[in-house]
Amino acid sequence: MEEKVVGASGQSLGGEIVERINALAAISEVPDNITRIFLTPEHRAAAELIIGWMQAAGMRARIDAIGNVCGRYDGDRPGLPCLMLGSHYDTVRDAGRWDGPLGIVTAISCVGDLNRRGVRLPFAIEIAAFADEEGVRFASTLLGSRAVAGTFVESVLGGCDKAGISMREAMITFGLDPDHIGAAARAPGELLAYLELHIEQGPVLEAQKLPVGVVTAISGATRLAVELHGMAGHAGTVPMAMRRDALVGAAECIVAIEEFCQSDRGGLVGTVGYINAMPGATNVIPGLVSFTMDIRSPKDSYRKLAITDMVREIEAIAKQRKLDLQINITHENRTVPCAPWLQKQIADAITAEGYRAFELPSGAGHDGMAMTDIADVAMLFVRCRGGISHNPAEHVEDADVEVGARVLLRVIENFKPKI
Amino acid sequence: MEEKVVGASGQSLGGEIVERINALAAISEVPDNITRIFLTPEHRAAAELIIGWMQAAGMRARIDAIGNVCGRYDGDRPGLPCLMLGSHYDTVRDAGRWDGPLGIVTAISCVGDLNRRGVRLPFAIEIAAFADEEGVRFASTLLGSRAVAGTFVESVLGGCDKAGISMREAMITFGLDPDHIGAAARAPGELLAYLELHIEQGPVLEAQKLPVGVVTAISGATRLAVELHGMAGHAGTVPMAMRRDALVGAAECIVAIEEFCQSDRGGLVGTVGYINAMPGATNVIPGLVSFTMDIRSPKDSYRKLAITDMVREIEAIAKQRKLDLQINITHENRTVPCAPWLQKQIADAITAEGYRAFELPSGAGHDGMAMTDIADVAMLFVRCRGGISHNPAEHVEDADVEVGARVLLRVIENFKPKI
Repeated sequence: MEEKVVGASGQSLGGEIVERINALAAISEVPDNITRIFLTPEHRAAAELIIGWMQAAGMRARIDAIGNVCGRYDGDRPGLPCLMLGSHYDTVRDAGRWDGPLGIVTAISCVGDLNRRGVRLPFAIEIAAFADEEGVRFASTLLGSRAVAGTFVESVLGGCDKAGISMREAMITFGLDPDHIGAAARAPGELLAYLELHIEQGPVLEAQKLPVGVVTAISGATRLAVELHGMAGHAGTVPMAMRRDALVGAAECIVAIEEFCQSDRGGLVGTVGYINAMPGATNVIPGLVSFTMDIRSPKDSYRKLAITDMVREIEAIAKQRKLDLQINITHENRTVPCAPWLQKQIADAITAEGYRAFELPSGAGHDGMAMTDIADVAMLFVRCRGGISHNPAEHVEDADVEVGARVLLRVIENFKPKI
Repeated sequence: MEEKVVGASGQSLGGEIVERINALAAISEVPDNITRIFLTPEHRAAAELIIGWMQAAGMRARIDAIGNVCGRYDGDRPGLPCLMLGSHYDTVRDAGRWDGPLGIVTAISCVGDLNRRGVRLPFAIEIAAFADEEGVRFASTLLGSRAVAGTFVESVLGGCDKAGISMREAMITFGLDPDHIGAAARAPGELLAYLELHIEQGPVLEAQKLPVGVVTAISGATRLAVELHGMAGHAGTVPMAMRRDALVGAAECIVAIEEFCQSDRGGLVGTVGYINAMPGATNVIPGLVSFTMDIRSPKDSYRKLAITDMVREIEAIAKQRKLDLQINITHENRTVPCAPWLQKQIADAITAEGYRAFELPSGAGHDGMAMTDIADVAMLFVRCRGGISHNPAEHVEDADVEVGARVLLRVIENFKPKI
């Protein structure tokens, strides 16, 4: 029912994409793993590779004021607003090769295919390859997409990396002007939508036996720091009934958090990832326990209500155990819903490719969290093996790369701007 | 109803005891806290002080082959077997002043009182001031009492302290002969019983509003190391139902251990003092959790059954959560029951002093654990403030010091050997 999507070399789009993923993976600070950090020589080398691929796909390409690579493929006449495709090309340390680059190189291959076929659409296509999404170097994420969205926070320029180099200095060394980051910002009217293809980074599509899925929202997240203060004591001499054991109190909270999230049907997830019991000796009852909570949900109002309920449960546990409690919110991200009209177009493309249009939230953060300030956003997820990400074992099957590309190309060719 | 027990100076025994506790507390490696470690100059200085006090109480005193101070007060004729009183004069680092020394100086003051009154009993009294109970320096406890009991393990001599000095070298420097530790051992026939006065190091007597109590047993202890292996994952992208979260599994185990011990009526106590969750990041589901268990009970058979039951519960939790489990016993101490005939004599003395003879197990270890190999043992506990021990805040009220001394003196004067 479909014509075969074929690249310039006679390869499928998937083959070209995988080759380019591997070429980017070779650009790393460290020989044996993938580490590609903002405003480094590796950033420069990767940007130049991407510019070359964009130009080969018939695009005009440039590095913008913050180090993003921006490519434009005009529509059937000049100056049209664009459908912006994008993702990021920085990585965490010891990263996988797919997180970020897959969205960039798939978009370039799709445009390349249109260009080879001489197809011009009634809108422009732009590809934004964001220079910093992970935030590894300056402890502030989404720097590339925030600059494009015009929400870059100037104070970040003063922040320093571990070597004591400020972002301002690093920009100058890279050849960028820190006083003109504003030039990277785009006006809302220039964008019809922002659409990102990304690996899922979770195990849901694999469990569903589906190569792709439609993202419903980038879940908002709240992080909390909890401290329970009890009374340290000798593990042998304090009878059970006289204890104020902060660790058993924390354990009860951890079980309660899981129970609360498990009983939920709205995509709520809750994680206690860090715990510390003081003094931490085998034969001493813990007097002080700290732990973190990470709570995410595709609905902000719902997440906030859930946190209120969970905090109330924790308070009750602390009170019943005569533990003193401190809870602080340390971080909060709003939910970014994917625009229903864009979700529909992605779902239609998936169905046309012969797959069930499965919907799932994104529990991880993405550049759409920044881009939502100037455009409606949507995401197409591609299955990754075992849900593993931020790890050298991150992997996407060739066949899934191909399906992702076919769906994205179909979305582009059939794209209808919001009326 | 009682004559007043008065020391040579006209003070109560309690006053002399507190003065001597303070004199010992001044002998420390570090000026601002109490740290008195085996085979150090502080060990030597404390030993000499104790020898002087013993001599002033009419005893012959000597340092034995391992550095214990041994004093003897003959009975109504020479060569009689002895009632041995004792405790230890080494400390943990940053210690309190009462843990150990109280038993030694109270015993000396009691003998001093007998001596001043010219009382000789139909048995000898010996006082053993043990040089190492805490085991701070060579990571092996009860070195002093083990030498006296003839159960000293020669291999400990090869062990080194943190500075790399072996116990053998440290003994030679101190002026002792490591090849003749055997000379410290006593024959079972020389001892009628071993009796130790010690602070409780727990909050039970305080809660009972009693100055002293009769110890029923030194609880045996088992320590276990538990590892739960699950699957690390992104806190946002793995739905609750697909997780194998090692920390929630551990939390469920910790709650179950507490529930099990709380429901017990036989003095069982269980503590999880140490926990570590890996990788330990706020936004990562813990894939590996290690924790310790410390389980104590005044009955060995009972403790072992309880551990079997708890391990079974932990196995069930791990299985249900698809976590891999490793449990290892890392340490095991048998219970040392206090001899009923000695407990009865202590209880009678407490009652005669006008207090209720309250019975409690000792959850902490004591020299009686070694002395049980050559004699029946018993212990008299003295209340300490807030149950706090191994801490500079360790405190015993003057009045309780006095009651402890009066009870101990009464036990000595009324002592009837086992028939």
